Amino acid sequence: MPENSRNSPPFFREEVRPEDCEAVGGLVRATGFFSEEEEDIAVELVEERLVKGDRSGYFFLFAEEEDRLLGYACFGPIPGSVHSFDLYWIAVSPGEQGRGIGRRLMVAAERLMAKRGARRIYADTSSRPQYESTRAFYIACGYREAAFLNDFYAPEDGKVIFVKALS
Amino acid sequence: MPENSRNSPPFFREEVRPEDCEAVGGLVRATGFFSEEEEDIAVELVEERLVKGDRSGYFFLFAEEEDRLLGYACFGPIPGSVHSFDLYWIAVSPGEQGRGIGRRLMVAAERLMAKRGARRIYADTSSRPQYESTRAFYIACGYREAAFLNDFYAPEDGKVIFVKALS
Repeated sequence: MPENSRNSPPFFREEVRPEDCEAVGGLVRATGFFSEEEEDIAVELVEERLVKGDRSGYFFLFAEEEDRLLGYACFGPIPGSVHSFDLYWIAVSPGEQGRGIGRRLMVAAERLMAKRGARRIYADTSSRPQYESTRAFYIACGYREAAFLNDFYAPEDGKVIFVKALS
Repeated sequence: MPENSRNSPPFFREEVRPEDCEAVGGLVRATGFFSEEEEDIAVELVEERLVKGDRSGYFFLFAEEEDRLLGYACFGPIPGSVHSFDLYWIAVSPGEQGRGIGRRLMVAAERLMAKRGARRIYADTSSRPQYESTRAFYIACGYREAAFLNDFYAPEDGKVIFVKALS
């Protein structure tokens, strides 16, 4: 991100704190984009990070303003690969969308992944119409559709796998 | 499997025991098909199963003869999907290959997955020439190539995603 925005809100934080469990659960729920099971998974990843640290394989980046969580990303190396990372989650609070927070989270998360050796970043999403904006977001961030698995999540709900090769 | 083979060796066992950690590690290593990191992952899944039971999301099927492990499969529901399962591992001891153990493991594992609600089974493998026989095995078992992710595991080592829709 440009120098002049580095010290302006939202602020980015990598350290994971116990209170992030509740904040992440609340944010993910508020988006209305995820099932209850997915909400639980989002919180479980925070919990696992808190218990195991780097060994969990989950890394986080939180965007916040005056202690409010505006958005976050969760990512990590894909076990068995030498340089592929998975962007497990990226979400922005509904009231804060349109401010470019998602884009800034993405750029900062990609930088952190690159520092940890990432050469390729994968992100999965649903093929359902509701996720049109999610898919457009990945495309706008330089990702391309690498694969489509029909009926993956449920009948008529396929998985789209996006990838971005870092230069 | 046909009735007449149900009581002939190898015997199939679902229950996971502490000694399976070592046996699975040894078998996976002996195949020569997996990296050290992958061997560790194979054992970690057994350990997680022992600690968490069904909650681990990992289910096992062991093929054995006179207490020797001949092969095994590990599978489970894919979090976030309603009816998709992942066949995480299927491996047969090198000295026991060619006896149809892999096929019988596959059929029995598919039956167990179906009983747990599986409608689609996914299996990933490498695109490297060494895995030609693995890919042929999936095709012979009724799987089809659903996606190819180039350079996924490493440069020139892509991921092939196979799928089988259960009827």
